[in-house]
Amino acid sequence: MKLYGYFRSSAAFRVRIGLALKGIEAERVPVDLVGNQHFAAAFTAVNPQARVPALEVEGRVLVQSLAILEWLDETHPNPPFLPADPFARARVRGLADVIACDIHPLNNLAVLRYLADPLGHDEDAERVWYQHWIALGFRALEAMLAGSRDTGRFCHGDAPGLADICLVPQVFKARRYKCDLAPYPTLMRVFEACMAVPAFDRAQPDKQPEAAAR
Amino acid sequence: MKLYGYFRSSAAFRVRIGLALKGIEAERVPVDLVGNQHFAAAFTAVNPQARVPALEVEGRVLVQSLAILEWLDETHPNPPFLPADPFARARVRGLADVIACDIHPLNNLAVLRYLADPLGHDEDAERVWYQHWIALGFRALEAMLAGSRDTGRFCHGDAPGLADICLVPQVFKARRYKCDLAPYPTLMRVFEACMAVPAFDRAQPDKQPEAAAR
Repeated sequence: MKLYGYFRSSAAFRVRIGLALKGIEAERVPVDLVGNQHFAAAFTAVNPQARVPALEVEGRVLVQSLAILEWLDETHPNPPFLPADPFARARVRGLADVIACDIHPLNNLAVLRYLADPLGHDEDAERVWYQHWIALGFRALEAMLAGSRDTGRFCHGDAPGLADICLVPQVFKARRYKCDLAPYPTLMRVFEACMAVPAFDRAQPDKQPEAAAR
Repeated sequence: MKLYGYFRSSAAFRVRIGLALKGIEAERVPVDLVGNQHFAAAFTAVNPQARVPALEVEGRVLVQSLAILEWLDETHPNPPFLPADPFARARVRGLADVIACDIHPLNNLAVLRYLADPLGHDEDAERVWYQHWIALGFRALEAMLAGSRDTGRFCHGDAPGLADICLVPQVFKARRYKCDLAPYPTLMRVFEACMAVPAFDRAQPDKQPEAAAR
């Protein structure tokens, strides 16, 4: 397997956690988003969407972090990313999607660049934008986690899963953009539990080879 | 089952298609997003995220359209929304996520409102923003669909599935915002094939009771 990623990409971070949890070592191909390597023909031939992550497996290319994680879970069932019960699976996917569909897409590099040009906003407006969508999403997540008996040491029960895999990179980004995380005690408790798991810790941006090379 | 939705919400539209494909009649509860009914306590008690759709089933509430669709598919397997092969499932989920994670989140009501206030942009800038993210996503989808032998009458093979369920509401929105769809012949061919299926046709915004009541 070959993982095309970028150390600071939250979506690539999710897949790094997923691979580590499953105990899979993938060859790593860094794609420097800040240097626009994702727009180079060498990469758009791999993924026409010009986004990371992309996972090359047996000559096929899988794209979109959640689709990759579901594939990983279907083909390498242990440890599972999703519980067995359909209602519980819907809960975990719902928590993951609050992050993957309602927070992260508003805060990725392409959007922040568009806010600067053509919209002409400065870094302050960018930070306020970022913090707004994080606060909106984290407030909902905190209510969903704190209000459910299904929440355990992790987002669902006492083993990490798909929701935790999405949560951790989003908290890293929130810290980077200096969001106030005090209003989300349940979410932060789960985050700390995740970071005590080696698979999450090893996958963090600053522990990637590209980060060390900077 | 009880579906909380709004006739113009793309995410609710996805779930309407899904229910119709599975032959499920759900009680319908309209939540007027333009009138801010989603922020009312009566609805945030149902879904703390204050978003539609939400599906109430046996006293539980499922949220996030993709999580709801996966639940529907797991509990009502026929007709399937996903193929059986894991690589094929990853392809379909990847196509769906290009729309659900990279196009739709940038163009929903909350974001368009934020562009107006506090960012102070007018309707023209809003339309350019909308068209930008649609074009970026549809260009990628067109390449992914046109470049694969797995594409059939629908996004994957000759039966509609999860990717088609996401595609159709996004094309409706693109038309509403007057996007030029000529550059996406494969995507539009699939759209037309979907609209010939009664489940897709019946789920469209203008055929909902709330639309008729306006």
